[in-house]
Amino acid sequence: MEQTQLTTFLDELAGSGATPGGGSAAALLGSMGAALLSMVCNLTHGKQAYADVETEIAALLERSEALRAALLGMIDTDIAAFQGVMAAYRMPAGTDAERTARHPVLQTALRQATEAPLECAAAAARVLELAQTAAAIGNRNVISDAGVAALAAQAALRSAALNVRINLGSLEDRDYARTVEQRLTVLLDGSGERLEEILEVVQGRIA
Amino acid sequence: MEQTQLTTFLDELAGSGATPGGGSAAALLGSMGAALLSMVCNLTHGKQAYADVETEIAALLERSEALRAALLGMIDTDIAAFQGVMAAYRMPAGTDAERTARHPVLQTALRQATEAPLECAAAAARVLELAQTAAAIGNRNVISDAGVAALAAQAALRSAALNVRINLGSLEDRDYARTVEQRLTVLLDGSGERLEEILEVVQGRIA
Repeated sequence: MEQTQLTTFLDELAGSGATPGGGSAAALLGSMGAALLSMVCNLTHGKQAYADVETEIAALLERSEALRAALLGMIDTDIAAFQGVMAAYRMPAGTDAERTARHPVLQTALRQATEAPLECAAAAARVLELAQTAAAIGNRNVISDAGVAALAAQAALRSAALNVRINLGSLEDRDYARTVEQRLTVLLDGSGERLEEILEVVQGRIA
Repeated sequence: MEQTQLTTFLDELAGSGATPGGGSAAALLGSMGAALLSMVCNLTHGKQAYADVETEIAALLERSEALRAALLGMIDTDIAAFQGVMAAYRMPAGTDAERTARHPVLQTALRQATEAPLECAAAAARVLELAQTAAAIGNRNVISDAGVAALAAQAALRSAALNVRINLGSLEDRDYARTVEQRLTVLLDGSGERLEEILEVVQGRIA
């Protein structure tokens, strides 16, 4: 995404090409959430009224910036993974030999297309956790941005979860599919409640 | 936003500049939702299995593209409105004459900074409505994208609502503030339930 213009990305998202799609959108949602957390940190750091949370804010900024970069990278990872699946589906499957050659390629590609949004979901869940800290200790003047960060992170988490689940049915390794579903459940569990808690704190701190 | 690179936008969002902030992020979230709806329409249109919904899909695409453009424009509208408030706050307020001059400028600027996210909230609510149709009639192969569209739209709506509410307390025209709050309540009312309904339909249609 290094040189992609914002309008170009949205045009491509809207277009009839298969990528970028919802998986990439989930990664961008998460990256926006992390960026907004960094903004809250940057506008809290160095302010005398928030001197007592300076160390915590610095640590938060470091983590949000790492997550922002990771999630931005996942836009492209998701595109590559999806294209891998498409390429596998396009392999010839007319003869037994062809089907035998295609089968492991497709299963590996599906697994990569599952791992990519699962990683995105995990990163988005961490952004949501950080948003809870930012909402509690960040500069009140920009506290609504911590709320927007939480909303973007939760949308990213649930969007990534949808993109994991579209592949689960096609995975032949049922143990792996079950492990993925369990990991997803852990990530999603309580996230809705966490979001509402964050928004309540934000609402209470709006000057 | 015409020439802005995606990475630049995220850098600016994360940075210590006051804009772009959560209001612009809300507009981008809504525009992403609309873009994903357009994608679902574009990948449903012309497919034989969906010939019976072709007219509905074409109408949906026209509306989602209009909303995508409108919401994209709101990224800049929000920045301009916020800068207007900042400029008004920077006006001298040392003498009675200065305060008398500053007062109406600030109130007008605050009103514009309230209108901008309120329009964004209204547009995002429409994206969420369209997502419900897309989830019901769109191509099953890309139905998860309708779910991501709904998640982005709802995050946009609630984010815009937060950005409306940060200004309400500073508005001296209490009738206006009450009218805005009422309009916001109508927009938000039932949106969470609508989102869950959409996600249930999407989950049920995932192949």
